Amino acid sequence: MTTDAAAMTRAIELSLLGANGCAPNPRVGAVILDPHGDIVGEGWHERPGEPHAEVHALRAAGDRARGGTAIVTLEPCNHHGRTPPCSATLLEAGIARVVYAVADPTSDAQGGGASLAGNGIDISSGMHERAARAANQEWLTAVARRRVHLTYKAAMTIDGRIAAEDGTSQWISSASSRADVHRLRGQADVVIAGRGSVLLDGARLTARDAAGRLLDHQPLRVVVDSQGRTPPDAPVRNDDAPTLIATTAEFGAGDDGRVDLESLSRVLFDRGHRGALLEGGATLGSAFLRAGLVDRLILYVAPLMLGSGTSVINDLGLHTLADATRWQLDDTTILGGDVRLSYTLEDK
Amino acid sequence: MTTDAAAMTRAIELSLLGANGCAPNPRVGAVILDPHGDIVGEGWHERPGEPHAEVHALRAAGDRARGGTAIVTLEPCNHHGRTPPCSATLLEAGIARVVYAVADPTSDAQGGGASLAGNGIDISSGMHERAARAANQEWLTAVARRRVHLTYKAAMTIDGRIAAEDGTSQWISSASSRADVHRLRGQADVVIAGRGSVLLDGARLTARDAAGRLLDHQPLRVVVDSQGRTPPDAPVRNDDAPTLIATTAEFGAGDDGRVDLESLSRVLFDRGHRGALLEGGATLGSAFLRAGLVDRLILYVAPLMLGSGTSVINDLGLHTLADATRWQLDDTTILGGDVRLSYTLEDK
Repeated sequence: MTTDAAAMTRAIELSLLGANGCAPNPRVGAVILDPHGDIVGEGWHERPGEPHAEVHALRAAGDRARGGTAIVTLEPCNHHGRTPPCSATLLEAGIARVVYAVADPTSDAQGGGASLAGNGIDISSGMHERAARAANQEWLTAVARRRVHLTYKAAMTIDGRIAAEDGTSQWISSASSRADVHRLRGQADVVIAGRGSVLLDGARLTARDAAGRLLDHQPLRVVVDSQGRTPPDAPVRNDDAPTLIATTAEFGAGDDGRVDLESLSRVLFDRGHRGALLEGGATLGSAFLRAGLVDRLILYVAPLMLGSGTSVINDLGLHTLADATRWQLDDTTILGGDVRLSYTLEDK
Repeated sequence: MTTDAAAMTRAIELSLLGANGCAPNPRVGAVILDPHGDIVGEGWHERPGEPHAEVHALRAAGDRARGGTAIVTLEPCNHHGRTPPCSATLLEAGIARVVYAVADPTSDAQGGGASLAGNGIDISSGMHERAARAANQEWLTAVARRRVHLTYKAAMTIDGRIAAEDGTSQWISSASSRADVHRLRGQADVVIAGRGSVLLDGARLTARDAAGRLLDHQPLRVVVDSQGRTPPDAPVRNDDAPTLIATTAEFGAGDDGRVDLESLSRVLFDRGHRGALLEGGATLGSAFLRAGLVDRLILYVAPLMLGSGTSVINDLGLHTLADATRWQLDDTTILGGDVRLSYTLEDK
């Protein structure tokens, strides 16, 4: 017999198996318990157009689901998209009780809990909500703000420099840190970088393993390039993944005459992207930060000191300590000789 | 029965009990095992002029030391200073075997091992040497370089700023981090800061507890002040601890016309100090770094972002990444919302 709490922990684990490529849909995991409380089905959402987590888990459970409990990380959907509503599927399977962690915040899919309750199903919500939110943070933030969730990553020295005075920056971080960046790219829907840094580094912005082989999932590569001057033969425009050259012509211009980053973030969302990884340089990163569009920071701090060069972040328009942006430290991890610091923006 | 290795681990623990105030002497711990291998005495060196660790441990052991083993973190001294040589004391006590971790590198005290061996004592060295060195790193570095061991500490934002554009810097770091700095001061022989930052912050540079009470051990406060213009009523000159105003008149001037920092570091050593804590500001910290006089870095990274202001380190005269100074990450610790990063300079 498995407790609801243990089953929810398992459902959260399962949800993460859909980490790469399930946008625009959320990561969801589901566990079915039979009336004795034994696990009889597990599932997660793999990619858009394919069955939701609940459906996979119910299929695995078959008749043993009847009279049982569905443990789901997100409120079951109530709408008929590319697949039928999960609320109806749960009813048909004879589920007697549904426990979910996080309420669905989207106007078109929410209401599954109420619909099930109206049909006599015992509903409870909020179990392990914090952990379930964390596992699905990018999607939740994106749908709440109707723009992509943005992670800004940078490799810097102990003293916060991402390049030396003469522009050299390869490599500040360790091989382990660089492999970690490829992992982040492999989980992102979109990777964003400025034209200058992409051309300077000859970056491809693809997700690759240590041997240089492409990972299964490749993000859309977005080059922020006001005038569209990225050459056709730039490595970032190769055939390994799709590339979008984001110009003011397509996305409009901000006050500074450059690409309107809020517009870009919203259009990427509207096109079905949820999690974006911003790879710099410092000017573009700072512009996204100034616009309040960065949700998470991942900094690889290398055990090097420069004392001059390009600072990781510049000109946020903040002049006194009381105005400093506040973040929350989520994690520290050692990678080679580097330490990776992860932060999320603190709620105002 | 206790193994030599377990006894050495205990001796290293004991050595740390003499952490505050035993300069110019090293931290040493000792354990006496009787002929059956049972612990019959423990000791550590408390402060100069008082008995060495071996003597304390032998006194506790009494006659049970005869035929036994002395486990010591540092090679027993061989010279008659304010106390008799430990090598002789161990012989008199009838110790049959001596195991030590680290050889004494000082010309006046070394040779204890050889002297004991010449008297028929079974000697072995190098056990747990790495851990024993770490516990006594400041003293070992200081006596090897004949200058104080220097730890540079700074509180900075995620983006490496120690003050905002308008100069505000109180408080960047959390209360836990600030308490940790008082702990560092309480372990240091000397605290060093520049006149500008001391006067700006009204700093006292004393070691205090959370309630503001002075800790037992207070470091010598050194204000680097080329022209000696620190006012007599500055808080750093109060009666809570001794203060040295370090001027060019006393310590000479470097190429920049300011206090010669190498000379200062050597004179402080000659006066019996070993571990120094450098508290900034950025100009003084960078000058010590440029001179190659900083052995350890402790950075309190607060979850704040400024994007401008004073960088933690500036102008080391390094122009390209290949010239960056290399450090080794020793420790990461969470303090409140901050993360403390500790580094030692990597051997060239």
